[in-house]
Amino acid sequence: MTQPTIPTALSVALLGGGTVGSQVARLLTEDADLFAERVGAPLHLTGIAVRSLDRPRQAAVDPALYTTDAEALVEDADIVVELMGGIEPARSLIERALRRGAVVVTGNKALLARHGAQLSALAAEHGGSLDGEAAVAAAIPILRPLRDSLAGDRVHRVMGILNGTTNFILDRMDTDGAAYDEVLAEAQRLGYAEADPTADVQGHDAAAKVAILAGLAFGGSFTIDQVDCTGIAAITAQDSAAAAEAGLVVKLLGIAERQVDGAVLRVHPTLVPREHPLAAVRGAFNAVFVEAENAGELMFYGPGAGGRETASAVLGDVVTAARHRVLGSAMRADRAGATAGPPALPITQASTSEMIVLRVCDAPGVLRDVAAVFAEHDVSIEAMRQGPDASDDAVAEAEGRSSVRLRVITHRAPQAALDAVVADLSAAESVYEVVSVLRVEGK
Amino acid sequence: MTQPTIPTALSVALLGGGTVGSQVARLLTEDADLFAERVGAPLHLTGIAVRSLDRPRQAAVDPALYTTDAEALVEDADIVVELMGGIEPARSLIERALRRGAVVVTGNKALLARHGAQLSALAAEHGGSLDGEAAVAAAIPILRPLRDSLAGDRVHRVMGILNGTTNFILDRMDTDGAAYDEVLAEAQRLGYAEADPTADVQGHDAAAKVAILAGLAFGGSFTIDQVDCTGIAAITAQDSAAAAEAGLVVKLLGIAERQVDGAVLRVHPTLVPREHPLAAVRGAFNAVFVEAENAGELMFYGPGAGGRETASAVLGDVVTAARHRVLGSAMRADRAGATAGPPALPITQASTSEMIVLRVCDAPGVLRDVAAVFAEHDVSIEAMRQGPDASDDAVAEAEGRSSVRLRVITHRAPQAALDAVVADLSAAESVYEVVSVLRVEGK
Repeated sequence: MTQPTIPTALSVALLGGGTVGSQVARLLTEDADLFAERVGAPLHLTGIAVRSLDRPRQAAVDPALYTTDAEALVEDADIVVELMGGIEPARSLIERALRRGAVVVTGNKALLARHGAQLSALAAEHGGSLDGEAAVAAAIPILRPLRDSLAGDRVHRVMGILNGTTNFILDRMDTDGAAYDEVLAEAQRLGYAEADPTADVQGHDAAAKVAILAGLAFGGSFTIDQVDCTGIAAITAQDSAAAAEAGLVVKLLGIAERQVDGAVLRVHPTLVPREHPLAAVRGAFNAVFVEAENAGELMFYGPGAGGRETASAVLGDVVTAARHRVLGSAMRADRAGATAGPPALPITQASTSEMIVLRVCDAPGVLRDVAAVFAEHDVSIEAMRQGPDASDDAVAEAEGRSSVRLRVITHRAPQAALDAVVADLSAAESVYEVVSVLRVEGK
Repeated sequence: MTQPTIPTALSVALLGGGTVGSQVARLLTEDADLFAERVGAPLHLTGIAVRSLDRPRQAAVDPALYTTDAEALVEDADIVVELMGGIEPARSLIERALRRGAVVVTGNKALLARHGAQLSALAAEHGGSLDGEAAVAAAIPILRPLRDSLAGDRVHRVMGILNGTTNFILDRMDTDGAAYDEVLAEAQRLGYAEADPTADVQGHDAAAKVAILAGLAFGGSFTIDQVDCTGIAAITAQDSAAAAEAGLVVKLLGIAERQVDGAVLRVHPTLVPREHPLAAVRGAFNAVFVEAENAGELMFYGPGAGGRETASAVLGDVVTAARHRVLGSAMRADRAGATAGPPALPITQASTSEMIVLRVCDAPGVLRDVAAVFAEHDVSIEAMRQGPDASDDAVAEAEGRSSVRLRVITHRAPQAALDAVVADLSAAESVYEVVSVLRVEGK
């Protein structure tokens, strides 16, 4: 077998310089070393195609990279990243790249929901690749898990909160009992809803995502036109209240369901039991719930929008596809296991917060003494609560002295400092006992 | 470039015939057609290596496939699936397969947490592959998302409920205020905890998983010995109560945290705010919470154990690696886009349940009439509730007739039948108004 050449660098053409595109351009520029290490070859950003050169540009990026000639840019790129949106000219540009066997990464849900299957076939035919993780639920990894991690299973159903705007609105209606129009106006003020919220509130955005999810979950090809779609505009505060009364909550779900002879795709306001994992998805967050034959019930949760979040998904696709290209061209034994990761550190170098429960002497000045121990080691206190406790009374009686229970929750501090605090407290005269020390995370 | 040959079939050697192994053997046998279609070439199970031929075997599998000679089995397999557990002979067998450039899939967390980095390097050196999705959180796709989907991002922290047994115990202590010993005994009775629960309750099982997660999240190589580990045996009902009082809940978390100069790996009982997504992970479920620079906060949730669940993860790795092998050997344009998926069906073929709110005449016999409409279309009722409503009174007064509100929740039924019910209700004389119809999912 002939030895294919190892690429010295992979060229990246970026189509689109909007919210997501500008973040992708910035990260490819600022984190060039990181990408070179992870891919095994540098990624070289050759240009950013935009509609007009007059619009604001990403400060971190060489202004000379901006161009309006998308066709020329695509011509000889190894990797094409399409973030223009819409069907044309995105489709033609992607087809052109795929016919050359290029790696294509897109975040274009409208395009994938109409022509995804044909474009994937084109990629396979010419030895290229097409990925679109960013098109569904931003940074939440869902397309790749459906395609790869569940490749040995049968997916029965995918059920997702796929649109942050509508989830924000419905969540507010549920929490505050507010009316739809009122909350929509608030969402627009806060930037969660666009001035023209049609695509979101009528469910079209979610419908495109359902078509894409169904194709990956069940195989084959589905389009947005096959999704039965009802939006949330008719949901009233009364609906929300009636649902709450029955232990349910209204969510706009996109559902793709396998049946014996086909699959049903639908988007509609749906009542979900309060104890269901999807019911706990609040605000503008997204989540996808998957039911598979053997894997059982899985859920993927995270932010469903945002420039940086979506850029993360785009770049995950770029690095993975580029890595395959580099590895496929030649096994590079010299690089095997060379990803120099960080060293492991002792837990004393962790930073955490702790809840410390103490039994202390019930006398004036004790709180001051205890607080002083924390201050000495630069550990600041988030909350302190003093109270009696039945078990303390018994101990106190036995010991013939009066004690009180103290619960302290600290702010985040170095583990070494927290350990020193606990050691000093254990030795303090006014502290009878350090009852428990537990770390707190997730605050 | 020479044209490599397309494999006509890929041989699979299975090492281990226990809970997971027997499920993998069954599925490879029963779903052979599915795997052949998804991989692009048949997967041919050549044997199952077990310690003794006297133990019970999987009924669906040809008994002649069982062997005690693991070494011979591994010798010429394209794909080696290792589910024996423990360090030896698993390590030697895997090394042997990797030196031949084979695809290796393992569920062996102990092995990966000690020798994962060396084995991955060996795979890369010889053009093979090593995957171990099943080693962490069973069917929850987490290793692949960390390695691929987040390949373009910087992971700051991974925080997981990685052991179902301890989560079951802590959840019970939190919910029922029960004592540790009591709940442990119950967990053993129910089969959630083993007779010797040491590896679970002392956190060693979670620690192995943290080492594996850290390697994928941060790059580089971590071992279980670098994980600072505290189990849950010292947690008291009082700790749990004190946490609850402060709006917190005790969870055994495995945490891998990137610092400027390294990474801290730890497993310990941790207080988590009630509103944090990890706090909602109940019973024996697992979840992994990931914080990344751009993606933000992501969570992956699902069953963390079980033969079929773990087999799903194993087979996902097998199909994906096998697919790459087939595609890598030659682009098969004839198969491009050939994955024949199911057709899209109209929503009338969906099966769902609905909450239907009606305003009906307040007279004897009306409930019977309404119930009859449901029965006529074979739609059974899960719950029916009748009650007044302020808005109804106003309408009723205006209309000069007395009405009452009826809320019906159906069991799952064909959409067509539900539509017919609503149409008939709308036309019924005693029904003044169909106030709302909303689908219910997730029950």
